[in-house]
This record gives sequence, C-alpha cells and structure tokens, in this order.
Amino acid sequence: MSGKRILTRNISIKEGRSRVIIEGIEPQIDGGAFPAKRVVGDRVTVEADIFADGHDSLSAVLLYRKESEKQWTETPMTFLVNDRWRGEFQVTELGDYYYTVQGWVDRFKSWRHGFAKKVEANQEVSLDLLSGADLVELGARRAAGDDRRALEGFAKAMRSKNAGASEQALRALDDGLAALMEKYPERRWAATYGKELCVSVDRHKAQFSTWYEMFSRSCAPKAGEHGTLKDCIARLPYVASMGFDVLYLAPVHPIGYSFRKGKNNALAASREDAGSPWAIGAKEGGHKAIHPQLGTLKDFKQLVTKAQEHGIEIALDIAFQCTPDHPYVKEHPEWFRKRPDGTIQYAENPPKKYQDIYPIDFESDDWEALWNELKSVIEFWCEQGVRIFRVDNPHTKAFPFWEWVIAEIKRHYPDALFLAEAFTRPRVMYRLAKIGFSQSYTYFAWRNTKWELTQYFTELTQSEVREFFRPNLWPNTPDILTEYLQFGGRPAFMARLVLAAALGANYGIYGPAFELCENVAREPGSEEYLNSEKYEIKHWDLDRPDSLKDFIARINRIRRENRALQSDRYLRFHPVDNDALICFSKQTEDLSNVIVAVVNLDPHHSQSGWVELSMKELGLDPQQPFQMHELLTNARYLWHGAKNFVQLNPASVPAQIFRVRHRLRREQDFDYFL
Amino acid sequence: MSGKRILTRNISIKEGRSRVIIEGIEPQIDGGAFPAKRVVGDRVTVEADIFADGHDSLSAVLLYRKESEKQWTETPMTFLVNDRWRGEFQVTELGDYYYTVQGWVDRFKSWRHGFAKKVEANQEVSLDLLSGADLVELGARRAAGDDRRALEGFAKAMRSKNAGASEQALRALDDGLAALMEKYPERRWAATYGKELCVSVDRHKAQFSTWYEMFSRSCAPKAGEHGTLKDCIARLPYVASMGFDVLYLAPVHPIGYSFRKGKNNALAASREDAGSPWAIGAKEGGHKAIHPQLGTLKDFKQLVTKAQEHGIEIALDIAFQCTPDHPYVKEHPEWFRKRPDGTIQYAENPPKKYQDIYPIDFESDDWEALWNELKSVIEFWCEQGVRIFRVDNPHTKAFPFWEWVIAEIKRHYPDALFLAEAFTRPRVMYRLAKIGFSQSYTYFAWRNTKWELTQYFTELTQSEVREFFRPNLWPNTPDILTEYLQFGGRPAFMARLVLAAALGANYGIYGPAFELCENVAREPGSEEYLNSEKYEIKHWDLDRPDSLKDFIARINRIRRENRALQSDRYLRFHPVDNDALICFSKQTEDLSNVIVAVVNLDPHHSQSGWVELSMKELGLDPQQPFQMHELLTNARYLWHGAKNFVQLNPASVPAQIFRVRHRLRREQDFDYFL
Repeated sequence: MSGKRILTRNISIKEGRSRVIIEGIEPQIDGGAFPAKRVVGDRVTVEADIFADGHDSLSAVLLYRKESEKQWTETPMTFLVNDRWRGEFQVTELGDYYYTVQGWVDRFKSWRHGFAKKVEANQEVSLDLLSGADLVELGARRAAGDDRRALEGFAKAMRSKNAGASEQALRALDDGLAALMEKYPERRWAATYGKELCVSVDRHKAQFSTWYEMFSRSCAPKAGEHGTLKDCIARLPYVASMGFDVLYLAPVHPIGYSFRKGKNNALAASREDAGSPWAIGAKEGGHKAIHPQLGTLKDFKQLVTKAQEHGIEIALDIAFQCTPDHPYVKEHPEWFRKRPDGTIQYAENPPKKYQDIYPIDFESDDWEALWNELKSVIEFWCEQGVRIFRVDNPHTKAFPFWEWVIAEIKRHYPDALFLAEAFTRPRVMYRLAKIGFSQSYTYFAWRNTKWELTQYFTELTQSEVREFFRPNLWPNTPDILTEYLQFGGRPAFMARLVLAAALGANYGIYGPAFELCENVAREPGSEEYLNSEKYEIKHWDLDRPDSLKDFIARINRIRRENRALQSDRYLRFHPVDNDALICFSKQTEDLSNVIVAVVNLDPHHSQSGWVELSMKELGLDPQQPFQMHELLTNARYLWHGAKNFVQLNPASVPAQIFRVRHRLRREQDFDYFL
Repeated sequence: MSGKRILTRNISIKEGRSRVIIEGIEPQIDGGAFPAKRVVGDRVTVEADIFADGHDSLSAVLLYRKESEKQWTETPMTFLVNDRWRGEFQVTELGDYYYTVQGWVDRFKSWRHGFAKKVEANQEVSLDLLSGADLVELGARRAAGDDRRALEGFAKAMRSKNAGASEQALRALDDGLAALMEKYPERRWAATYGKELCVSVDRHKAQFSTWYEMFSRSCAPKAGEHGTLKDCIARLPYVASMGFDVLYLAPVHPIGYSFRKGKNNALAASREDAGSPWAIGAKEGGHKAIHPQLGTLKDFKQLVTKAQEHGIEIALDIAFQCTPDHPYVKEHPEWFRKRPDGTIQYAENPPKKYQDIYPIDFESDDWEALWNELKSVIEFWCEQGVRIFRVDNPHTKAFPFWEWVIAEIKRHYPDALFLAEAFTRPRVMYRLAKIGFSQSYTYFAWRNTKWELTQYFTELTQSEVREFFRPNLWPNTPDILTEYLQFGGRPAFMARLVLAAALGANYGIYGPAFELCENVAREPGSEEYLNSEKYEIKHWDLDRPDSLKDFIARINRIRRENRALQSDRYLRFHPVDNDALICFSKQTEDLSNVIVAVVNLDPHHSQSGWVELSMKELGLDPQQPFQMHELLTNARYLWHGAKNFVQLNPASVPAQIFRVRHRLRREQDFDYFL
C-alpha cells in the first residue's frame, strides 16, 4: 500500500518560535492537487487566512515564480478582514507558475501600534522608546547603504537624551521609519505555507473563443459532390464574415468500410454511403492520414495557413477509436480486447452493438507503447500547425492517459488547447478539466428555463469550479438537436445563440445547420437530426434569406468589441418579475465595460416585465439616470433606478444586449448650475 | 524555502492501467492536515467520489486501522448516487484511527451486467459465456478450498456444451457466483487514495458533558471564611443533585501579592483582599502547588476521589501566565521578555497595563525547556487523577505548542480532555479545535435572537466545522454576564439554560451565580459582575427559594435520559411564525429518540405561534396524530400534522421540551377494524 501518511499526532517541531498560521489559501483545487487556470496577462488574486496567537501585528508576502525559475518573487499581502489577507501577481507567460504564502510576527509593527496608543494616552514612554530603538538598530543591521544610515539615524534620535519627549515620539512614529522597517523585516521565524500551489497559464483563446463546427465533406459548391479541403478554403470567408475564430472540422481521416453505417445510422450502408467521419481508419491510413476524397496533407496545411489569414484557427477532432479496417488493428492487435474466439471485441452498450467500432483497450499490457503512439497522433497534427483539439468522448479513455498526454504536448506546444467533449456526469466532467483540458462542453444545451440557467451558471462561474473548468457553450452539435430548437422555430435559435454567446466567453455552433435553423429530428423524442450530416454528405443553401448569418455576425462583433463578454468571472443574474425573461450582466473588473442582456425564453409569445438591476455591483448611481445602449438595434434608452421595464417580441428579436453607459451629462453639471 | 512541491505537470505514471479516480473523501479537514473527531462507539461514515472512464462497473472498499496496527481492515463501500460511495467503520478504542479508500474496475461485475442485458434481449451469448467463464476461472485461482471448487464448478457449467443455453445463463447469473466473485476480486490495478486520513477518538464525555464552574474558596459554610478543598467535598452532593458531571474549579494555586488586584479589579488591594485565582504564583509555589488556604495536595486528591463517587469529574484550569512572584520568574527569567531596563515586561493592551501578570514569552530562545516544563504541569495534574482541563486563553499562546502538548499528553493519557477558552476570532477558535482541543467555548452567550442562534448553530453543527469543533455552551462565566441576563430576570436565565442544555450536548454554567440569577453588572454597558467573585470570596445562599437548582436538575435529567440531546449532529431548526419563539429538534440517528424544544426568547411577554415541524425528517407520518410528551411538566399533547400551536409564558416556564412519541394506537389498529 502506497500513500503518504498524515501523522497529525506525532508532531515534530523544528522551530517552536514560528508562531504564524497560514491556511485556507485560495485558489486551491483539491488541496493543491491540481492547478488553477488563468490566461496570459491575468492578475492572480491569492487570499489566505493568516494569524498568530495573541495580539501581535503580522506581515505577509505572496511568493510566486515561473516553473522554470528557482527564485521566488515577492509581493506584499494586505489585510482584508477577519484574518483574511490578499495579494496578487500577474502571469505574463504560457506555462505553470507556482505560488505560496509566507507570514511572520512583525515586532516593529506591533511595537509601533502599542507605542502610538501610549503616546495618545500621554503615558510615560521612555523605556518604550528604547525598546523601539533596539528594534530599529536590528533593522539597520539587515539594511545597507542609505537605508542603513537612515535607520541608524532614527535609532539615535529615539535614544537621544537631548530631544524632547514629544519630538522623540514624532521621530519614532515617522512614516518613513515604518516604511524602511517594512523593507527590512525580521523573518527569522517566518512561517511558509506547506504547499506550493500551481496556476496554469494558457493563451487568451482558452478563455475567449468563438467556434464554428463544420463537415469538410459538405463544402462542395455543387450538391451531390464530395467536398474537399480546398472547398473548405473557399468557405473560409463565409465563416470569417460571421466572426468565428475557431473552425472545428469533423474528423478528416479515412473512414472504415467494415460495418459502415448508412444514412440515418442504418445498419447496412450502400456503396455510395459516405459513412461516419468518427469511424476512423481504412487501408488508406488511420489518425495521421487525410481521407483521400478530402485531399492531401498539403491541402490541409494550406487550409491551416489560409484560415490564419482570416483570423481563424483550425481545430481538429481527436477521436481515439478505430474501425476494423484501421491499420492499428493489424499492426497492434494487443491494443484491443480479444473475445474467446480470437476476434476483436467491438464496442457495445448491451444490448446495443457497434460493430463498426473497436474501442482501444487502456488496460492493454502494452499500454506504454499505446500511449506513446496516441501522443504521436496529436504531435503529428501539432507539426502541421494545429494547436486546438476537440477531444471526442475523453471520458471513455483512461484519465491518467489524458493527464499525461496533455502535459506532454504542452511541454513542447504550450499554446495547445484541448476541448473536452464529455457529456456525462458532473464529477467526471470536472475531473477532466482538473487534469488538463483547457475547455469543456457543458449541460447548456439542456438548460432552458430561467431557474435552470441561473443555477447552472452560478455553479460554473461563482463557485470553485470557475478556477479549473472553462465552459464552452453549444446550442447544437451534430449529436444534439434539443427539443427547444425542434419546436421553437427561428426565435428559439436566436434566443439560444444570444444565451450561448453572452453567458459563455467560449461558445460554438454546429453550422450551417444552426444558421439555417435546421430543426427536424429523426423521430419524436430523439435529439438526432433527420438525415444527419454524421452519415451523409449535405449541401447547404447558405444564402437562404432566413439565414441567421447576419445576426450571428452582429453578436460576434458585440463579443469582440466588449471585453465584458470575454470572461465568465463577473457573470451576475438580476431578477425579472416574469419567469419567461432572464436578465444577466457581465463586466470587466474595473467596470469600464458593463453589458446587460435580457432574453425572452419563450419563443412563441411576446413577454414583458420589470428588470431589477443590482445597481451597486454594476457601478450605477441610483440617483442618476444612465444610458442603456442596445447593441443589436443600436437604440439608446434612458433608464433610472434599479427597476426598468422591458418587452421582447420573439417574432422580431427575442433578446436585448445593452452596454451600460455610466454617466450622463445633465444640466446640473454645467458650471452655472452649481 | 521548505515546502512540498505540487508538480501537476511533470506527471510520472507508474501503472497506466490503474483507471479508477478517488476524490472528495469526507470527512477530511484541510486536505487531511487534521483529524476528524469522534467518540468511542461511534460509527465513522466515510464518503468518496469514485469513478473511472467508460461504463465499467466498479467496486470499492474503505480501509481503516487503529494507529498502532499495521494491517488494514476492509469494509465494502456502496454506491449512493452521482459517483458518490459510502462506507463506515466503528471506532472502539481511544486514540487515532487512519482510513483511506481503494477502488477498482470490476471486470466480472461489468461482464455480468452486460450479459444479463443480452440474455434479456434474447441475444446469442455463447461467446459471452466463455468470456465469463475465463473471468470465473481467474477468480477460482485467487480462491482456495470450497470457494475455489465452487468457482471451478461455475466455470465448468458455463463452458458445458451439454447444457441448454438458458440453463447456462442461469448458472452464469447465479447470485452465489456473484457473491463468490465479489469475495475474490481482481485488484491488480486498484487505485488507492493518495492520503491516509485520520480520525481522533475521545471518550464519550468529549461529546456529552455537563459542567459546573465554581470557586473553591467560596465554598466555606460560613460567610467571611476562606473556603477549602474540604468544603468543596461537602459541596459535591449539591452539585451532583443538579446533575452535573464535570466540576470545573477556578485555579487552585497560590496567588501572587505584587500588584494584586482588589475588589472589583481595583488597582490597589488591601491586606484582606484574596486576589484573582488567575494571578498564579507566589513564594508558596506555582502551577503545581495548591493555595495554602485551600488545603493540601492530599485534600485535592481526596476531592477528586469523592467527586468520582458522585459521578463527577474534577476539571482543572490551565492558565499559563505568572505573577511577578511566581517561582519561574526567578528560576527562568529567560522565559519572559525583558524591558530595556532589565525588568520583565508585564502584560499590556496599550494603553492598559496589567502589572500583576507576566506573560510567558513563546519566542524565548529556551523554548524547548519551557515547553517541557509547561507539559510537566499538565502531567502533574494527570498524575493526581485529573483528566479534564479547561485551558485559559489558549489563543494567547503559540499554536504549535498546543498541538504538541495535547498530542504528548494524550499519548500517555488518551482519556484526557481539553476545553479551549478562546473568545476570539472564528478562524483562531477553529484552528485551536483542529490542532487538538476536545471542546471549545463559543459565541453562544452573545447569540440571543432566533436569527443569530439559527445561523450560528447551523454553521457549528451542519457544516464541516462539526467534524473538528465540539461546542461547549455557557450562558454565563465569571467574565461574562450578558445584557440579556442583566435585564431579563429569572425567565432569561431559564430560557438561556434550556437553550444551552438542548442546543449543546456540552454545556456549563458558572454557579452558584447562575442558579441564583445573579445579574447585577459592575456598570452600565459592562459584562463584568458587580463584586465579581474573581476578586473576592463570596458566600452564596444556596437555599434561596428562587434558586433554579431544581429546574436545572430536571433539565439535566432530561439530557441524561434522552440520547438525542447527547450529540449535536442531528440538530435541526423548524419555522415558527413568531420571531420571539425558536423551535429546534435533535434526534438519534435511528430516530428512536426525538426531542423538540420550543423556547420563548422574550423574557418579558407571553408569546405564541404556529410551529411547523419537518415531518419527514423527524420520522413523523403527516396522516397520523402523534404524542408530544412535554418533559418539564410531564404533560402530554396530541399533535396532528406539521403545524401546531404553542404558547409560552415566561412568568412560569419560558420553554417546552417535547419527546416525540411516534405512533399512537388508534381504533383502526384493532383487529376487528381491519
């Protein structure tokens, strides 16, 4: 049995004079087992409970360093209230930073505090002056140069018998002296927190990204043709015009033939059926190959380059599973589980059978070679210029593998990002985020009522979860056409788009199904699309007049222009006296950008109600009117006080996105009025 | 810089096939840094999140051992919901137990689950039977004797070509086979939680105790005389008659003469002034000596013995501070801080000076000798038969000292209990509990309204705090005469007594001031008693007709007779539609004893209202009437449904303590009625 023993009883004390207690440090995930997440440029605010016995004054510093550095940098912590202290540092580079906290009993600060009270009470302080002078002299010995001479001067003045008592007291309480003593503290018995905690720093896109999912094979200009990567390049201006900055392609690898699924997931495929892109592997190759009908690796690299020119990054799907035709099956049969008759075990969810898929056996005796090969798949695509990976069903592969492989990849490609497509139980989704996934799919698609949305997004953004889990909100995916979208018509698509784009700094849509409001399910009660693009090549009419492309472009521009929408940290819900209306706000930390969104969750009826804003938190003066600039329509409203009326008609636009303009000039502001 | 580094990025994987994740184990204090607390006989319920990738079935065990044992004992954990598992073990001895959790992917359980579904769907399962037989054969190899033979028999039947398919399936799904396979699981790749967590086990009195605080010097039969320990012995029947089981004596050591305080804390004492018992140390001795006027060490030991005969334990005060006359001052001047003129620094809270007290300097260079000497003080009293210590102001002495000394004492005297008298900030009070104090004073004295009481006791008993902090509630102490008691008269004392005794399994009063409703403060706004017993010898008329002694005796008998009141774990508040009335319940885990208390918090007026009980939680059937047996008056009420009317007149008794009698026999219960 391994495991570190916690011996709370056999206390071994090395330094009994170290009296300061440090506990409750935040952020801290699972007692320091996992890093908190931040992006380059963030300030990391660290809080801790710091106290000692008795009434002595304390001082504390936050220590931090880049992983590669040995030396700590220090920054002072300040006392908040109730033994809570706070400090902060800025993270400026990709990778990991470590931080911890040190505190000590500050004898000079304690002395100064008591001395001031005695002086105030007109007590005799000659002995106290000498005690203070002793401390200042010790401080001088820790200093050098001018500082040392200055401290010696203070000590001398405090000892001087010629000076008057009040003059001496004035010198002893001098702010300059206090500042100098703070610069050279006595830290012999300082206590340092027992753990070095970690914060993992990604690039800004980890926190703010706008995704468009697409099947490359459906990009052909003519119906009935198999799209290519070159067609994808031609599609880039369209995607860019809507304001997306990540283009995520369904797998682009050769598709297996054995047990290939037909249209609508039919068990038998005809010769023309294209199969599912997630059924990876054929004689043409596996996870490092390009489907021949899509083009070549050169085409792919060109797509990556051209996308960059449009401000778009290509995200690749990592789906670690194989068809019976995948080269691994022949080359590494030991990576799969065998049945008693020697055949390889296909995927099952009894009584359902998925004979077109061989799951990889993470309990293989050859697991180390397996892990290295899978790592090499991701590395291969990194070498082609890809840095964003959407990982298919990571929760069906071993957690230790992901923890290891993400760390390995990020060692060489610290800008790599991983989105976990895990629609499963909450603990599992959170664990994947803790062990390294940069972003995560969420339950957003199934959170439709005000209560559901408020509960869920409060948990995601206001609890500890926000330290390690970055939500990426998808109103639809090729697997998920929710009932809300099926029956809500175009207004439902608009409402869900605004919710995704404004609630989530990271969001995405599966298009063109989304902008064309594709909403027919395979059968009642199913969330599968009828004639799903997963099993056949589609041809989309992008120019349909009812397309939401312009609306999407507008929303994405609002996201780019308003920093408040580029983070989830300051999300706040505000009451509305109508459950069909939801109101929430986001803001920058400095309140320079404040966005208030109101969405009508009822796609069928016009709804109205009184919104009640948390004025103080939004930086609003209840005595002053303020301007609400509605960014979808460019209309400007004058609001006054917390309660204001809104009315939203789904037949036109079921949402409003206001930018709050804090201060209006009024007649009283003119000089002659004062 | 010391400190363990958390290297979340440099993952080293020893066994990649170990797929189970274990996290969120509870109880767990500060990531396992401190033990949870229990008493002998308790069952320790441990919960954990346990899961793996994919859909395989898991098994898990809770491992536990007494500190002295090397071998773990195992007990199975059961799945609750949402990846949460639970197991429990009983603690039967004093001292520390360790526990951790192990989980593994259970291949046979997974196989059986899938197999059953296939059989149900009438699928062909001949290959599956062979897979299962393989697993059973592996199981047989891990077993021996009859079990082995039985498993081999099952495997053979599953392989048999003669048997019919349905007969084979029946054998494969046999419950006996499942039980045997559970007995011999394959745990090659089991995951064990990375930490061994600790639970510290005290005797039952740590959880349930009834304290009476008394000044021995005030026990003389005649007014004006200095009481003795022999007088204390004579007072034992009185204390026992009220039902107390801990008699806590204010310090019994020699009292210093230098700067001795006079009556009402006067700066100058007259020759007759007895001084404060907390001003410890004189030429007659220090912390190991008995004040000559109280008697001898022999008298003290006799008091301890006689008290035991009355079912009472003597608790001693540990007040680590010295008067200028304490022997330590001469023998160990290095244990005190010096002023620049060579004199010893007296206690200060500028501008206030306490020249009669020299605080011990826990930053002394001679700290190790100091710690050992202070330990020897506690040991000395343990040797005299004392096992309960009320520690005076522990928060003004170094935390590491307490952590060390309590562990040291409990190593030799595992039944020793320590009550922390720390009236200070919450973090500090909680930390003292974490590092080993068995019980703690609380803010109870200052929590008077329903909102205050509900908030505070919900925090203490329903949050993580309950795992390490055992509240001990005192309505008064020699230092604390609250405004509520000053102005509420006898009803206020009764109400606060019921609250203390029913909200807290541990509580105490400072008597006889309490039972005699002593309520005159030294001055308006002060919580100090006028003519406080701290500074003078008192003579109390114990037979005053208005004494609460009989009421106290009744309350303490109710506590002894109702196990529900002997723990704080199942405290619950119930709404009353009148803020002057508070209603709460306590129950045993098995609901065999349920107590509901209603207290009128207004000592001046009769108050009435509708109580609304949480029926389900109390085990009550909303369709059946139930009997409420009021234990103060012995009256019985028939209640029906959640809402019932109560009225409490402070002029008689401001509280009701009901025992819930769950089930009443009704006419329908007779045979002929069915």
